[in-house]
Amino acid sequence: MRGAPTHPGEGRRALAMLRFAPDGATIGHELVDPDSPQLTVLDLAATRGDGIFETISIGSGHPQALDPHLRRFASSAAMLDLPAPDLAAWSAAVRAVAGELGAIAEGFVKIVLSRGIEGDDLPTGWAFAAPSPDFTAARTEGIRIVLLDRGYRHDVARTSPWLLAGAKTLSYAVNRAAYREADRRDADDALFVSSDGYLLEGPSSTLILRRGAHLCTPRTDLGILAGTTQLDLFRYAQDGGLTTSYDLLTADDLLTADAAWLVSSVRHAAPVRGVDGAPLPVDRDLTDAFNDFLRARTG
Amino acid sequence: MRGAPTHPGEGRRALAMLRFAPDGATIGHELVDPDSPQLTVLDLAATRGDGIFETISIGSGHPQALDPHLRRFASSAAMLDLPAPDLAAWSAAVRAVAGELGAIAEGFVKIVLSRGIEGDDLPTGWAFAAPSPDFTAARTEGIRIVLLDRGYRHDVARTSPWLLAGAKTLSYAVNRAAYREADRRDADDALFVSSDGYLLEGPSSTLILRRGAHLCTPRTDLGILAGTTQLDLFRYAQDGGLTTSYDLLTADDLLTADAAWLVSSVRHAAPVRGVDGAPLPVDRDLTDAFNDFLRARTG
Repeated sequence: MRGAPTHPGEGRRALAMLRFAPDGATIGHELVDPDSPQLTVLDLAATRGDGIFETISIGSGHPQALDPHLRRFASSAAMLDLPAPDLAAWSAAVRAVAGELGAIAEGFVKIVLSRGIEGDDLPTGWAFAAPSPDFTAARTEGIRIVLLDRGYRHDVARTSPWLLAGAKTLSYAVNRAAYREADRRDADDALFVSSDGYLLEGPSSTLILRRGAHLCTPRTDLGILAGTTQLDLFRYAQDGGLTTSYDLLTADDLLTADAAWLVSSVRHAAPVRGVDGAPLPVDRDLTDAFNDFLRARTG
Repeated sequence: MRGAPTHPGEGRRALAMLRFAPDGATIGHELVDPDSPQLTVLDLAATRGDGIFETISIGSGHPQALDPHLRRFASSAAMLDLPAPDLAAWSAAVRAVAGELGAIAEGFVKIVLSRGIEGDDLPTGWAFAAPSPDFTAARTEGIRIVLLDRGYRHDVARTSPWLLAGAKTLSYAVNRAAYREADRRDADDALFVSSDGYLLEGPSSTLILRRGAHLCTPRTDLGILAGTTQLDLFRYAQDGGLTTSYDLLTADDLLTADAAWLVSSVRHAAPVRGVDGAPLPVDRDLTDAFNDFLRARTG
């Protein structure tokens, strides 16, 4: 969530804590003050990053791509052996906090499920809503990225599931370190590459390349997240006559692409204008079309 | 921290929250109720696992190996570009909560420094003390372990520092998944191996092998933690006439060792009695000597 800060007073923030019965069933949610402490220092979210999350964009009051986000939430929970989230209860919590945002053009809801307090056998969960930062610059001027080794081979999700590659976990210290490394190299964002040379994903985004009238993105069996925004954009592009595919891609594919984007739920489509200092062409028209489409989604 | 639970009422728990001035200077600590919420859902410890920790054992009231732990805490902070911790203030917090534990044989203090609330530019920190679980079985009967691929090459700390290999971060979801994988394979613990075949460390322990009158442990430049307990044991062993070294080790070295241990601050020395289902000899005398020494440390 890197962007210019929102203006003070622009939009409200809201927090709903999920409530669980002693048997683990989800009772519902309760709206509470987002600035008051809600977690003990024994919560495994805070001590072990042992939980999962999703971030859902809110466009003019509508949660966008909510069902794919909730499906991915459930998939991450399964990968971490967490109790299966009650998606109806989570959906209600998302809508409740989104409804508290007031009349803003763009916001987001972050949902988090942690394993809870160690020894308690009950999860902790919450949904937090806030206005989105202003990503106009990234969406229009584009971003300069660096390629960073993620350390893992491309097949690690298959060989070593305990590494949780492809789960959206709270253990994101490395993703944040990648942003700091990008800063150090005078770039705006990073793209992870497998230790055997395949393009993966950004710390919180999905890569899309254009070559002529064809869009492609890294295969989702490489230990990366299946992109919800990328999926919506592929459907939109197919409706517009473009073809799409999931491929094994290398740095050469990126450097010779006609255009490239890092896409994500809240920043939407950020055109890549530079890779490791080398310029990349920006497709302004398609970028604008992408972002107009993403902003206008009502589901 | 896997062991039999302590008896109810045996020892107290205590929590000190570190307090920081607006300029980031550490003011001191404040004792608070460990069961009351202290963290907001916006703390980067809980949302990104973006922070560091250490766990210090308390033996008969004495924090053990406190200085090495604090030095490693500072080293982890530097690797994550966190503000350098005020070690005198942290030391005072450790002693304060340890003093609240009451007269127990073994306890521990966990110290945590997170990047704080996103956008606030002030860290969050705490020291939590509790009685230790009962690790008698692991220390005497030994543990069965499985070797698990960590996915990273042995040289990743040098090539890719943004992966934070060798920092003790709050992003430990993978470490906990490794324990669950060990459970699935009917084992008690795991030992990570680099993707190119070198023995690394346990999810929260350091490996020591014995071959004759020589002890060895994996080199600390492999993206692993420099073990505080291992360091104390090497000094103890040298005083007893054993030689010691830091080496590149493989599974063969483990399987042909005369004895092996996973050592850590709270569980102390757990002899390895099985590796991936193959039995390993347990050196009962040296194990007992190790644990007697570790328990008796007064600093």
